Amino acid sequence: MGDGLYIGLDLGGTNIKAGVLNGAGKSLAKVSVPTGRGPDAVIANMIAAARQSVHSAGITLDAIDAVGIDSPGPLSTEKGVVIRSANLPGWENIPLRDRISAALGKPAILENDARAAAYGEFFAGAGKALKVRNMMMITLGTGVGGGIILDGRLIRGHTDMAGELGHAVVVPDGALCGCGQKGCLEMYTAASRVGQRAAQALHDPSVTSSLREPLAQFGELSARDVEDHARRGDELALDIWNQTCRYLAIACISAVHWLDPQMIVFGGGMAAAGEFLLQPVRRHFEENYWKMDPPAIVIRGAELGNDAGVTGAAALACAMMHAR
Amino acid sequence: MGDGLYIGLDLGGTNIKAGVLNGAGKSLAKVSVPTGRGPDAVIANMIAAARQSVHSAGITLDAIDAVGIDSPGPLSTEKGVVIRSANLPGWENIPLRDRISAALGKPAILENDARAAAYGEFFAGAGKALKVRNMMMITLGTGVGGGIILDGRLIRGHTDMAGELGHAVVVPDGALCGCGQKGCLEMYTAASRVGQRAAQALHDPSVTSSLREPLAQFGELSARDVEDHARRGDELALDIWNQTCRYLAIACISAVHWLDPQMIVFGGGMAAAGEFLLQPVRRHFEENYWKMDPPAIVIRGAELGNDAGVTGAAALACAMMHAR
Repeated sequence: MGDGLYIGLDLGGTNIKAGVLNGAGKSLAKVSVPTGRGPDAVIANMIAAARQSVHSAGITLDAIDAVGIDSPGPLSTEKGVVIRSANLPGWENIPLRDRISAALGKPAILENDARAAAYGEFFAGAGKALKVRNMMMITLGTGVGGGIILDGRLIRGHTDMAGELGHAVVVPDGALCGCGQKGCLEMYTAASRVGQRAAQALHDPSVTSSLREPLAQFGELSARDVEDHARRGDELALDIWNQTCRYLAIACISAVHWLDPQMIVFGGGMAAAGEFLLQPVRRHFEENYWKMDPPAIVIRGAELGNDAGVTGAAALACAMMHAR
Repeated sequence: MGDGLYIGLDLGGTNIKAGVLNGAGKSLAKVSVPTGRGPDAVIANMIAAARQSVHSAGITLDAIDAVGIDSPGPLSTEKGVVIRSANLPGWENIPLRDRISAALGKPAILENDARAAAYGEFFAGAGKALKVRNMMMITLGTGVGGGIILDGRLIRGHTDMAGELGHAVVVPDGALCGCGQKGCLEMYTAASRVGQRAAQALHDPSVTSSLREPLAQFGELSARDVEDHARRGDELALDIWNQTCRYLAIACISAVHWLDPQMIVFGGGMAAAGEFLLQPVRRHFEENYWKMDPPAIVIRGAELGNDAGVTGAAALACAMMHAR
């Protein structure tokens, strides 16, 4: 992408991650500190973490070209302002970009966390080897989010809301989502819902399943429980896991017809299942995809794990400097 | 967008349309000639139509900066080659762009017809007044197609297949589409299917509907029949029309969460219904959209009609010259 050194700052509800990366996406240093509470304290912690990462890299701030920041949203990338955040109490219209930019004396850019992570995978993770220019990332966590890169550019949309992949409707009149819609992708594929769907199926006393044991023990089931029991051959767990992969495949089919990406990357906690998730998604994709031409899409797992945000934020800072 | 004069050439199965437009999308002249058969004859007709449009505009070829061509696909925009076409017998790997470029002595660009029409609406039609930068067009004809413009750029995808909006899956395990998929948007919203769905409903002898009359007379029903009888209050026709609008709204909701466009434009034959189509689509959108924030999307009808392709092709030629 280019020369130079960039700071990536990833603001999470629990931790702030900071890192120094070069223009090829290589990490020179990374640090993690607790987030803290309230905008002023959190911003001070972010600035301290940034300085710490620079120190860890064995350089000074002089060597840094720009800073990329990602944060939960909604936010305005144009204004560099976090509008509010469910995970950050007290944040309302905080000019995060300019405050960090002023403190560090560097140009800065603000991005939504899910989109920054997608850009990180595009720039230095799953998308790097194939030199992908068109990519979509689907992040399977408590919710389902993601980001879309087309022609090498991160898609933000008219109101900075692009990438809310979990709220695409996959089942008209389907399960009621917390957002008020029915049949959101998130309701069928988010990690939190996979366990819930298994627990619900066990309300039927005639269903036999080894999942009854963890349900009795913990009072609830996680996606990890479903994965573990599916791996051991439990029929209910396999069925729920398989349905999940099928809905993901159907969402991918729609994405391919709309946007024709070269690669779809799965990230987030549930994607740690690796090929146990990806193989059935690929199989359902092939079974359900049109017969006009064979599927050419590459479906693979994310590679950067929790570093995707820092990497993507730094990469966006690099892209900003090279677009000038 | 810029200065200069551009030829737009729109290759259809029946007619070739040619026009001269300036860099603001204003038409100086347009002509239409029969397509003819076989690549050589058709290309000769296209070149003749281009020259004729220049003559009609009262200028000479010297005044033209570049030529934009759109054609049914699949095609390669990078190579300027039409790979094949269901509507153009005998076309296989035809270097349409370079043949026209050489004959007219001008730089040329080749684009898919549905995407060119979307770009035309973006540049000089429905998208112009609001200076839209993010827009999607859905074309309701025999099939359902369209195009997506993000950040002012037409989205082509990795293999030039972006914009096949009709084959997004809206009903998992839904009606079997000719493409081999189940539940394609096209099966529920294409003009050809709207009439068919009404005719199917009339297989039930207990259903009362004024549509029985045209069905008996013509042996089939068109989307126009359904629209006409719905306007007159026929219950079945209203129901089918309403369902159609609802599926369109659900597809729009998914589009908004993925791409966050400012505007969705409906074109194609069925969009001639105007507000009778758009109002229920907007209503279903509002009813089914999440409650996290109010819908901000603008849903409107196409403005350029059959000139969208010529306009879009010329606009893409203009964009090509200004990107150099």
